[in-house]
Amino acid sequence: MFRPEIKVVDCTIRDGGLMNDSHFPHDMVQKVYQAICEAKVDYVELGYRNSKKMFSTDEYGAWRFCDEEDLKRVVDDFDPGDTKLAVMMDAHKSFPQDVIPADESLVDMIRVATYVKDIDKAIRLAQVADEMGYEVGVNIMAISHEGGMFLDEALKQINSETNAKVVYVVDSFGSLYSEQVHYYVAKYQEHLTSGKEIGIHCHNNQQLGFANTIEGIIKGVNYVDGTLYGMGRAAGNCPLELLLGFLKNPKFNLKPLLKVIGESIMPLTKEWQWGYRIPYMVTGILNQHPASAMAWMDAETEPGEDYLKFYGKVTEDDRPK
Amino acid sequence: MFRPEIKVVDCTIRDGGLMNDSHFPHDMVQKVYQAICEAKVDYVELGYRNSKKMFSTDEYGAWRFCDEEDLKRVVDDFDPGDTKLAVMMDAHKSFPQDVIPADESLVDMIRVATYVKDIDKAIRLAQVADEMGYEVGVNIMAISHEGGMFLDEALKQINSETNAKVVYVVDSFGSLYSEQVHYYVAKYQEHLTSGKEIGIHCHNNQQLGFANTIEGIIKGVNYVDGTLYGMGRAAGNCPLELLLGFLKNPKFNLKPLLKVIGESIMPLTKEWQWGYRIPYMVTGILNQHPASAMAWMDAETEPGEDYLKFYGKVTEDDRPK
Repeated sequence: MFRPEIKVVDCTIRDGGLMNDSHFPHDMVQKVYQAICEAKVDYVELGYRNSKKMFSTDEYGAWRFCDEEDLKRVVDDFDPGDTKLAVMMDAHKSFPQDVIPADESLVDMIRVATYVKDIDKAIRLAQVADEMGYEVGVNIMAISHEGGMFLDEALKQINSETNAKVVYVVDSFGSLYSEQVHYYVAKYQEHLTSGKEIGIHCHNNQQLGFANTIEGIIKGVNYVDGTLYGMGRAAGNCPLELLLGFLKNPKFNLKPLLKVIGESIMPLTKEWQWGYRIPYMVTGILNQHPASAMAWMDAETEPGEDYLKFYGKVTEDDRPK
Repeated sequence: MFRPEIKVVDCTIRDGGLMNDSHFPHDMVQKVYQAICEAKVDYVELGYRNSKKMFSTDEYGAWRFCDEEDLKRVVDDFDPGDTKLAVMMDAHKSFPQDVIPADESLVDMIRVATYVKDIDKAIRLAQVADEMGYEVGVNIMAISHEGGMFLDEALKQINSETNAKVVYVVDSFGSLYSEQVHYYVAKYQEHLTSGKEIGIHCHNNQQLGFANTIEGIIKGVNYVDGTLYGMGRAAGNCPLELLLGFLKNPKFNLKPLLKVIGESIMPLTKEWQWGYRIPYMVTGILNQHPASAMAWMDAETEPGEDYLKFYGKVTEDDRPK
């Protein structure tokens, strides 16, 4: 009944780091790492490996850079089983010359995140990562703003010019409905003819993160992303625990996830409120970046203040109802 | 592009009343009523009309009974446009003799809620409501525990013995995945051959309330339920504002919903915490009533306390991880 090809990627620390400038304590990251390994999740992405020339180390925490010594403190001598370690490199915020050989690194997989417009940088980075011995993925962000000839061209280039093993549909704005997921997956399938897998990474602005991930799976997607309790910027992500509840592969173990959510994630909800909120929903249905909603939420002291005003602002429709 | 046959039912006050024993102040109910009408939502369900022999009026608020004088205070002289007023009667908690003639009532539609086992009571109630001049719906609850010959039999009976205009798939436990929604809708379509519409009412234990409602629509469901900000017992319901964002019928107006959510719903979140939580997720994936999760949440003082223990309790698996 289950499809053994399906690989689950936890990106709690990496994508959650967009919420708090990647400031997670080492011991919390270690607990998450161990729980993901114990749950037999296929990959654990511990952060970005972005350039210190692009991000200040005063402002951003260790998981924006994933220095090998920081990874080493987390991994320690814990046996990860078959769980592989991933980091993400933004094509426009990191440099190919910063990629060290895989056999000198704890990292197994490098995921290159890119906008369609930066695809040439992404391809160069993917090529270098491949040459250095890593598994490589390419995550095409803000996909709901793409769909025309530039996306087709980007997919063809990735297909012919890289050894990426997986190329992701990334719904950065949590804007897609199921039929659009089907559309993008079909488009990827059309262009990725060289044995590459398709992945999906969903956000929850319209409470469709998990549902759209399932829709991807139904259409043949084999790499799926989740975060613990959906932790992530704004409305957050597809919850990893829901994914494991859905997938039938008997190797997965939900219990370590329940434990670490209770012990290490729920305490963070006191400081960081991710999840479904009306302003995030509004940017989701308008297919906009949630930045305006996040700024509005930060500025509000009371929940529920005049959503109509926010809606007017982002739709440039300030007329009264 | 849009399907004019699709009717949206707001059940914020009715289903939200399972969270607080139907204790909503009259002025809050009035604001919700007016906003739903202004949004051009097709039906607004203001509560249950259950028997005072089954529920104590000391313990339960007005919206468990929906006395005509209480409805009158809400409706007042406000012009509802085309929005119709609905109440729900539980087949096992109300009596046919309590149904007054429709021309003496403010109510347009009576929705009969039933378990498959109470189907004969439901049919009698549906018949009386029809004879008295109401539009009639039948909502089959806990559908995820049904599927065999008794459901087939119940659908055949409703089809041949009632004039119900709509029969609902009710995912009381928030347990269904999209493929199961397709299964139930197809089964309903097979048996409901006398021109009856199919409805869907979803809960959000697995964050699939909205997604499953869309799946129903794609398969031909024409009656869809939502509540403002997903308000409802435990993980809550399909959010009405998401539904209106999705549906393309130009008559709908999202703005009154955003306004009333900010003014009348968000203040309730201080006292009542509905929405996705790990214990509700656990009962969802186990296809159980959320009662155990609600009791556990009520007893907990800190969020995130030992979910593993709860999981062990409900799976009767108390072994350590």
